[in-house]
Amino acid sequence: MERQDKGLAYMLQYENIAWYEDGEVRILDRRIYPAKTEFVVCRSHVEVAKAITDMVTQSAGPFTAAPMGMAMAAWECRDMDAASQMDYLKKASYTISHSRPTTVGRMKLVTEAVLPAAEQALKEGKRVDLAIRDFIVEANNLRYAKIGKCAKYLVDMFPDNGKIMTQCFAETILGMMLKECQSRGKVIKLFCPETRPYFQGARLTATVCSQMGFDTTVITDNMPAFVMAKEHIDVFTCAADAICLDGYVFNKVGTSQIAICAKHFGIPMFVSGAPDVGHPTHDTVTIEMRDPDFSLQAMGVRTAIEGTGVKGYYPAFDMTPPYLISGIATDKGMFSPYDLHRYFEGHVDSNILTV
Amino acid sequence: MERQDKGLAYMLQYENIAWYEDGEVRILDRRIYPAKTEFVVCRSHVEVAKAITDMVTQSAGPFTAAPMGMAMAAWECRDMDAASQMDYLKKASYTISHSRPTTVGRMKLVTEAVLPAAEQALKEGKRVDLAIRDFIVEANNLRYAKIGKCAKYLVDMFPDNGKIMTQCFAETILGMMLKECQSRGKVIKLFCPETRPYFQGARLTATVCSQMGFDTTVITDNMPAFVMAKEHIDVFTCAADAICLDGYVFNKVGTSQIAICAKHFGIPMFVSGAPDVGHPTHDTVTIEMRDPDFSLQAMGVRTAIEGTGVKGYYPAFDMTPPYLISGIATDKGMFSPYDLHRYFEGHVDSNILTV
Repeated sequence: MERQDKGLAYMLQYENIAWYEDGEVRILDRRIYPAKTEFVVCRSHVEVAKAITDMVTQSAGPFTAAPMGMAMAAWECRDMDAASQMDYLKKASYTISHSRPTTVGRMKLVTEAVLPAAEQALKEGKRVDLAIRDFIVEANNLRYAKIGKCAKYLVDMFPDNGKIMTQCFAETILGMMLKECQSRGKVIKLFCPETRPYFQGARLTATVCSQMGFDTTVITDNMPAFVMAKEHIDVFTCAADAICLDGYVFNKVGTSQIAICAKHFGIPMFVSGAPDVGHPTHDTVTIEMRDPDFSLQAMGVRTAIEGTGVKGYYPAFDMTPPYLISGIATDKGMFSPYDLHRYFEGHVDSNILTV
Repeated sequence: MERQDKGLAYMLQYENIAWYEDGEVRILDRRIYPAKTEFVVCRSHVEVAKAITDMVTQSAGPFTAAPMGMAMAAWECRDMDAASQMDYLKKASYTISHSRPTTVGRMKLVTEAVLPAAEQALKEGKRVDLAIRDFIVEANNLRYAKIGKCAKYLVDMFPDNGKIMTQCFAETILGMMLKECQSRGKVIKLFCPETRPYFQGARLTATVCSQMGFDTTVITDNMPAFVMAKEHIDVFTCAADAICLDGYVFNKVGTSQIAICAKHFGIPMFVSGAPDVGHPTHDTVTIEMRDPDFSLQAMGVRTAIEGTGVKGYYPAFDMTPPYLISGIATDKGMFSPYDLHRYFEGHVDSNILTV
């Protein structure tokens, strides 16, 4: 697959994700997008892990950046013997998958999934880095198809001319949801809370929605209840960083309070994505506490007074319990959050990219 | 009362409110405080009204700035005959009281209350501007005493070592509440949502709390539910821009969703202040919709993409219904929000400054 190929490779490369090529991984820097479109260039898998830790990319982004980092690792060890290369890749898998504590389980599924493809390439004397990249491009193709199905079940829940509230940046499902609305000729209006402290809602979600031609309103994070009461929101929807089999959903901090408000106002909440076999119960998820001082600034400008000991606080995610969730829009249909085991009946889906 | 006097006059002048002196009103610019301590200087009552419209001061600030603007108006018309001066002042009262739609009723009580003092000064041949300023300083003395009483009833509700969540900047009641805790030796920890889009919680509330020596944590506006679940908040408390006699409370946008979350987590919510005879029912209050684009920036830095039609949204206040409120801490005791008429039994309080 050549860099100049269009299609998915192009999409991965330019549309806000990550791309490996000959000794470097380029990751779109979502911390500054859309004000600036710049890429962080990583020249080792350790730099890729650090970029994920540093939130260069988030939402589903790390799940493409991570295996691209595995391709990078394959490049780093290309002159070793086959056994040493596999050993190097396994260590790289550990390093990259541990870049953010909340997603270790799912990230490991991704970074370990490339190992058989690497082994196969070694046997056949092919370039391991490219074999890994091909593998992840193909996995993303499957992922897009799968998320396209989730989007159909989700959009079924939107009334015509519906008002939809989002939270954070739902990335692929957001794009698929909007495409699905377009293909049905379904008009919706979007209300996007800005999602402090990184403003993903204001910067990323609203960009995608408005660029795709939808009526898009950004609100601050203290406005969802007002908007629900005043604008008659029809649906609250979000993606998830983890959908546990017991129906608890982990997503960007703020989701749970919008869910509480939605329940209060009688507005259904639908979460898109597949349940995560790695998280049978909610107590298997660690919520990452990030640098607290980050909440004492906005867009790089300090908000709180300095020198008087004011503390910050920054949980990256929060947990929404199943009793606040109306349904999980999966690729196999809309499920009750209390019935997620049924998702796996018959067979366990082998695709490792589920965001 | 001379400018060099200490005490309350000093407090009004320098402690983040407003002060009239010989043809100018100086108002602390809370839009940039505490990063910078600068005063907006108004040289006419129209400029004072505009400063209030422009949010140079907010919370209780306008209720001091407005009558200082009346003193300013008296200065402007000092060379007219007595009848014309009174006419000029009445027009100024209208202009200033209409500077923000949500508070017209209460603001009018304040700007009209100075008229008898002006009339008296005219009769006695005294300087009208100074008579108005003396009047408002005395009214503030009464207000401080009254709010001190509210604070006692409020602080009764705080457990020792309690964790208290605030919203926006409660100004005088905040200071009185903290002083009351100090005088009882009651230790509390404060969690202050930053209060977008102006960051009053991060900039003002946290400054007062931390400068008075309290353990103070600023959270972003999407974190209250997380903090309630994780940190076991004991009490949610706020002041109000209007406490209607039917128990509905209007306060900075975001209050209602914190109230909904507090109810969800079984945390009591106490509102401080006196019920407002000007608002017998909640439908007498107009919620001010401010410039929507203000929600598309943070601390002066644009957040949303430009050129794709993304819209902003900015209600200044929201309404919290009585079924979410555990009590109203008034100067006459803690009242049920369903029992506010009883506050006026016996006599109607004549003090016009009730914030």
